Amino acid sequence: TADHIFKEIFKTALELQENDHRKALLVSRKKKAEDTVVVVNGERIGEGKPSFVFGPCAVESFDQVAAVAEAIQAKGLKMIRGGAYKPRTSPYDFQGLGLEGLKILKQVSQQYNLAVVSEIVTPHHLEDALDYIDVVQIGARNMQNFELLKAAGQINKPILLKRGMSATIEEFIHAAEYIISQGNDQIILCERGIRTYEKATRNTLDISAVPILKQETHLPVFVDVTHSTGRRDLLLPAAKAAIAIGADGVMAEVHPDPAVALSDAAQQMNLQQFDEFYDSLQKFMKSYEVHA
Amino acid sequence: TADHIFKEIFKTALELQENDHRKALLVSRKKKAEDTVVVVNGERIGEGKPSFVFGPCAVESFDQVAAVAEAIQAKGLKMIRGGAYKPRTSPYDFQGLGLEGLKILKQVSQQYNLAVVSEIVTPHHLEDALDYIDVVQIGARNMQNFELLKAAGQINKPILLKRGMSATIEEFIHAAEYIISQGNDQIILCERGIRTYEKATRNTLDISAVPILKQETHLPVFVDVTHSTGRRDLLLPAAKAAIAIGADGVMAEVHPDPAVALSDAAQQMNLQQFDEFYDSLQKFMKSYEVHA
Amino acid sequence: TADHIFKEIFKTALELQENDHRKALLVSRKKKAEDTVVVVNGERIGEGKPSFVFGPCAVESFDQVAAVAEAIQAKGLKMIRGGAYKPRTSPYDFQGLGLEGLKILKQVSQQYNLAVVSEIVTPHHLEDALDYIDVVQIGARNMQNFELLKAAGQINKPILLKRGMSATIEEFIHAAEYIISQGNDQIILCERGIRTYEKATRNTLDISAVPILKQETHLPVFVDVTHSTGRRDLLLPAAKAAIAIGADGVMAEVHPDPAVALSDAAQQMNLQQFDEFYDSLQKFMKSYEVHA
Amino acid sequence: TADHIFKEIFKTALELQENDHRKALLVSRKKKAEDTVVVVNGERIGEGKPSFVFGPCAVESFDQVAAVAEAIQAKGLKMIRGGAYKPRTSPYDFQGLGLEGLKILKQVSQQYNLAVVSEIVTPHHLEDALDYIDVVQIGARNMQNFELLKAAGQINKPILLKRGMSATIEEFIHAAEYIISQGNDQIILCERGIRTYEKATRNTLDISAVPILKQETHLPVFVDVTHSTGRRDLLLPAAKAAIAIGADGVMAEVHPDPAVALSDAAQQMNLQQFDEFYDSLQKFMKSYEVHA
Repeated sequence: TADHIFKEIFKTALELQENDHRKALLVSRKKKAEDTVVVVNGERIGEGKPSFVFGPCAVESFDQVAAVAEAIQAKGLKMIRGGAYKPRTSPYDFQGLGLEGLKILKQVSQQYNLAVVSEIVTPHHLEDALDYIDVVQIGARNMQNFELLKAAGQINKPILLKRGMSATIEEFIHAAEYIISQGNDQIILCERGIRTYEKATRNTLDISAVPILKQETHLPVFVDVTHSTGRRDLLLPAAKAAIAIGADGVMAEVHPDPAVALSDAAQQMNLQQFDEFYDSLQKFMKSYEVHA
Repeated sequence: TADHIFKEIFKTALELQENDHRKALLVSRKKKAEDTVVVVNGERIGEGKPSFVFGPCAVESFDQVAAVAEAIQAKGLKMIRGGAYKPRTSPYDFQGLGLEGLKILKQVSQQYNLAVVSEIVTPHHLEDALDYIDVVQIGARNMQNFELLKAAGQINKPILLKRGMSATIEEFIHAAEYIISQGNDQIILCERGIRTYEKATRNTLDISAVPILKQETHLPVFVDVTHSTGRRDLLLPAAKAAIAIGADGVMAEVHPDPAVALSDAAQQMNLQQFDEFYDSLQKFMKSYEVHA
Repeated sequence: TADHIFKEIFKTALELQENDHRKALLVSRKKKAEDTVVVVNGERIGEGKPSFVFGPCAVESFDQVAAVAEAIQAKGLKMIRGGAYKPRTSPYDFQGLGLEGLKILKQVSQQYNLAVVSEIVTPHHLEDALDYIDVVQIGARNMQNFELLKAAGQINKPILLKRGMSATIEEFIHAAEYIISQGNDQIILCERGIRTYEKATRNTLDISAVPILKQETHLPVFVDVTHSTGRRDLLLPAAKAAIAIGADGVMAEVHPDPAVALSDAAQQMNLQQFDEFYDSLQKFMKSYEVHA
Repeated sequence: TADHIFKEIFKTALELQENDHRKALLVSRKKKAEDTVVVVNGERIGEGKPSFVFGPCAVESFDQVAAVAEAIQAKGLKMIRGGAYKPRTSPYDFQGLGLEGLKILKQVSQQYNLAVVSEIVTPHHLEDALDYIDVVQIGARNMQNFELLKAAGQINKPILLKRGMSATIEEFIHAAEYIISQGNDQIILCERGIRTYEKATRNTLDISAVPILKQETHLPVFVDVTHSTGRRDLLLPAAKAAIAIGADGVMAEVHPDPAVALSDAAQQMNLQQFDEFYDSLQKFMKSYEVHA
């Protein structure tokens, strides 16, 4: 019927428009078909083999970070995470050690040959931080801090960009576009759970975001299993799901003594749990890599 | 300090209370530690090996259902799904063939030796339906239709209970309790996505719900990858994630000619896509089963 | 530019299509421009002057209902609400007195000359209930219990239809269409809060839904201030907002002794709070009616 | 029973703890019982009489802003809003005129004797902006840009702090605490809608947040009816609801020619609609003020 044909023409035209729009994005597959590979401390992120970023929520002391770094190094891994500038809901909560924290991270990372992933929360911290950090993390609360994104686009270090707490996938992609449009294409996207009505988990891990982001963009996609679930007992199953669905990496928090952690005590793994987590995941991955 | 000890006492006492409360639930692990196994057409659901339920969204004709049934049988599978009573947002949308649809399902299932999974939407349909259906599905919109749940608790057939569109995991568990408290413990829980702000997918697949439901209850847990994602291109990655995270089964919609389907045209697989989907998943699972 | 003209043509055509679609709905303004007035116990609902429905969450005893009825009658109001069939999350919570509860409501309503508003949860209760109830409430959990909606469309009593917990406005309108399409146009819509991430209130009162529903449909629109806020301290401000934005009525729960109520203890008003609530609202409305 | 007493003790103790915690907040009523009044251009905000902030979404030209300023001045109002730094989802959308925009605002405001409300998005813009702006707006995307909040706490100008897109009321209050804890107590809170599944409105106006914020804090509370609804046809009803529920002010966007606006074309009022909106609201308020 005429009505049907009319509809089809519309649909096609609308899709064309949308395609045009998307094509414009530098992060899109349409602009660049092949996967972007981000190299950190010799590790090639985004080439098929999942990467891992572990470390404490917040840097508290040299010994605390070193204990985790030793465990990471022992597994042959290349990166450590740790927060020096901590965005916290209350101004009276522990705000991180700041520059002092970055210095600890640097010291530890040199000793254990690890690259440092750490969050920067405002443009004017960025320049100083470059001496201490290998991968600049932009956190969920700052996903649409556009001045920070633009500043991150002008540096020569990889950026790990976390999805905002209630950001749509489209907004997330456009946030990455703010970075790449300034010249920096070394971007890792990180799904970390979204805010929903469900309170059994801290956030709701939007696992479907991973294949969508992989389709729409050429960037590597990580999953932060700690912040998405907020539950130590869900870290391993969530990590398996992330890897199975095609994530390029998994982030999780590890602390030598979570019970006395200055932040996120309830969701960090201790060193023994870390070993068990990683062993189980390796077993899962081994089978997966060989046969899938 | 005294304050700290005070807090700890509180926390412990609160947890005790909650534990007591949960212990009361017949669906809980605390009441029954071992997994419930639901046997359908010889297939043991909930014993470790993932089960599969495929079939069209709605029953439209004998030929349509038979075409899918043949493909299912060819894969050695034991169940087929198809809607005879279709809950639809608008009263002017196709409402399903009703009893006629159930008769078609019965006829096809006998010819292809498949068990039938089909949705019942109101208690007074239940009795008639028992002659035609092997597994009674209770849909998302009826998860808190308590009269239907109670009626389902009084029959002698397995129930596949879908999570409500915005049901908490706790409400979902209590809905199952309505069934089991009437005597029927043959219940399969089915995560099918929750309603969130994100519109890139039809719903947001709450993959973490799977391990939580497995921990909290002794019931098998399925994932409906069709309704959770609403996107044909996400069915395979979502199914992999579901299996990796420990789901006991996967549901997906298959239609011989999705373009002319009377409902959900955009998200059903055709028969060739079905073959590819299942082959890929088998490869993924083979590795997984052997090594994990 | 050509592109712009193209876009405009599209937009217009899409709107035309949508308009066509909406025009089809019997509840829509396009089908019937003038307001539907529902007459209950002599009160004309939907004609400009706000109506009020008060009463206990659940019917517990004759004395309990009578105490509230007396306070309602003293205010010159015409309706009382009370639940006989209570949909509850847990099967072990108080489920209501059922038919016994309806009988109490009938008895009290005759004594105090009030119309009874009470929830029915399944089609087969409907016939019996007609002898006891003046307005049939369909609750949030049953907004898409389509068999119940169709049955409600075949009776000759007004229906108070509550919005589902996570129903879109469009789904809500279509649920009403299920009723009207069976012949019953005596429908009152009731906004009762939607499920969101915010937990400071039990639900999030979607106050904007009121003017949207008034624009899109010709039906009266109520606001349930008890279930939307779940907080006694917010009942009065929420009621003022509801009336100011154009609601045709306000529902709230009143119990002679909320502390011992068998359900919703925390959110019901006692009789003194009820008096204060109503007085304050009357003062607010008096000014509003005269000048606005 | 013992169990009951036990529970009551717990509840009381938990409430005591929470009270203690809240008492610590400088923005809380517990710390300061009386309302904070913020004086802007001679207008006393937070003393009972609603204030109004109108103006274009973005500053585009002197003439555009002046046209709106004239209409504002004609109503006897004291403030104008306009965005010079525009946070936009896409880097390719109009980003605002920046410092040039601030200069236009300053020029217009002097000519029409209006105070300027304008958004600042990063700390290092703040110092320059102080010469041009009377009230610094911190937008939804930056509600947890803690470095910006801290910087705003160190200046001597009122801050209009918007609620984040998916911020809880508790997080919103703590964001204000970041400002006040640095010494600046001239803070206006602004509810601007939250992100939910409902797409009939751009966001969901959480009207209940107004009385909660008024109870919990001593700060004035505004409602932005433009961004919460995103619909021109809902601005007036939403403004009525806001005033009825106790908001200290209403914000809305006005543009001389919305159809050609560089941002938010669909939701701004033109000058005639602005007149009608304001007249209707004044009528509504007159009645309300006199009698309520």
